[in-house]
Amino acid sequence: MLSQNQSKLVRSLHQKKYRVEEGLFLVEGDKMVLELLDNTTLEPNHVFAVREWLDKHYKQIKKSLFPVTEVLPEELERISTLVTPNQVLAVVKIPHAPVNTDLPAERTCFYLDGIQDPGNMGTILRIADWFGIPAVYCSPDCVDLYSPKVVQASMGAVFRVPSWEISLEQLLENQSNIAVMGAVMDGKDVFKNSLAATGILVIGNEGKGIRPSCERLLTHKISIPRHPKGRAESLNAAVATGILAALIPAK
Amino acid sequence: MLSQNQSKLVRSLHQKKYRVEEGLFLVEGDKMVLELLDNTTLEPNHVFAVREWLDKHYKQIKKSLFPVTEVLPEELERISTLVTPNQVLAVVKIPHAPVNTDLPAERTCFYLDGIQDPGNMGTILRIADWFGIPAVYCSPDCVDLYSPKVVQASMGAVFRVPSWEISLEQLLENQSNIAVMGAVMDGKDVFKNSLAATGILVIGNEGKGIRPSCERLLTHKISIPRHPKGRAESLNAAVATGILAALIPAK
Repeated sequence: MLSQNQSKLVRSLHQKKYRVEEGLFLVEGDKMVLELLDNTTLEPNHVFAVREWLDKHYKQIKKSLFPVTEVLPEELERISTLVTPNQVLAVVKIPHAPVNTDLPAERTCFYLDGIQDPGNMGTILRIADWFGIPAVYCSPDCVDLYSPKVVQASMGAVFRVPSWEISLEQLLENQSNIAVMGAVMDGKDVFKNSLAATGILVIGNEGKGIRPSCERLLTHKISIPRHPKGRAESLNAAVATGILAALIPAK
Repeated sequence: MLSQNQSKLVRSLHQKKYRVEEGLFLVEGDKMVLELLDNTTLEPNHVFAVREWLDKHYKQIKKSLFPVTEVLPEELERISTLVTPNQVLAVVKIPHAPVNTDLPAERTCFYLDGIQDPGNMGTILRIADWFGIPAVYCSPDCVDLYSPKVVQASMGAVFRVPSWEISLEQLLENQSNIAVMGAVMDGKDVFKNSLAATGILVIGNEGKGIRPSCERLLTHKISIPRHPKGRAESLNAAVATGILAALIPAK
């Protein structure tokens, strides 16, 4: 049974303003909540689930630190961000690790310059998590990392890939001799010029690409060439990120 | 001014059933409608736009064959599929070219096996349009190519890339000695084994991958290897398609 206060809190977390204020975000869906229960780096807050789900997963629930409340399907529907809600919803504390500006030495990181679409943001985190990208830095005007659609599209990568909000200038302040790569219109063919194994790969905004203040910080301008018979104006930002990530050489 | 019949027709086209029945689909947004006006292969039906848009683009409208109706912003809002509608919406005839099973000889084509997410479908068409893929074949259980979200995510590629619905078995019926490539869990590392320059690249469903009846038709089983430190369970279907498409060699 859901209390009025719980219902109000969860629904408020659909909005960024309240996620920031409360320091909490929502995770929905069977697979991701089960993963959360096993995750020891995220601080639990609460799980709301229907009877059927609780019966099925009582072992995992017992082991985890999450307080659990049983709710009715119609109660879950009222607090869910999904049109067709799953059987479970979790409230989780937003991690508050201070930004680590010591760039990981083992492998190239991502810098996201104004990514706006939550589906793209989540998909990029998932790409980072597949290709072993050690950190994802985001410009302050990126879509909120903890928005429900980002969490959903990331398929849990948001729990695993360290991500921070910082300007590219600040991030580069204490670095020297670092490769800063980014795809621009007139960049060099990425299939003929290898990417650096360590450094930063800058991913531009969906419509506008990399903004001029970031572009002037690039040390390697690259591009994914269009096929001579291709007519699309551009590639989707997450797809371009996937192609570039796949081409980062091992060190 | 929008008539009741027009309003009813356009709103019915939000649903696949009526798109099939009427043989019409919707295109929204400034950029895509302008592209439509210049497109000579698609049969126009109607453009609905607000005064401001008509004033701005009167030259293109005059040149095109689309009948145009001026509507009020609140009328457009009622017929739009978007939460925040643009200034213009077009109704277009669904092309009815018979399926061409003669595989283009110049370059590898896509076969989509049960792609369900409209965003992925549109993004895959956009990838095909970037990498000069000459045709996209879809299994009959794929998401409707003409659903508003597919059209939107394709950024116009749905107008340009020839796409047909057909089973993989039927498509392969009259082919011999053709490379049928597909990403599966135990496939060969695609970075160490080149893809074929011509043939078919099979893309599997988002959750289930390539179904067994299609998998047994593969002649080349490939995979995009996960980085040793990566922990994601899989890549997004459109991202995987983009990576594979980028790796198709020129003939």
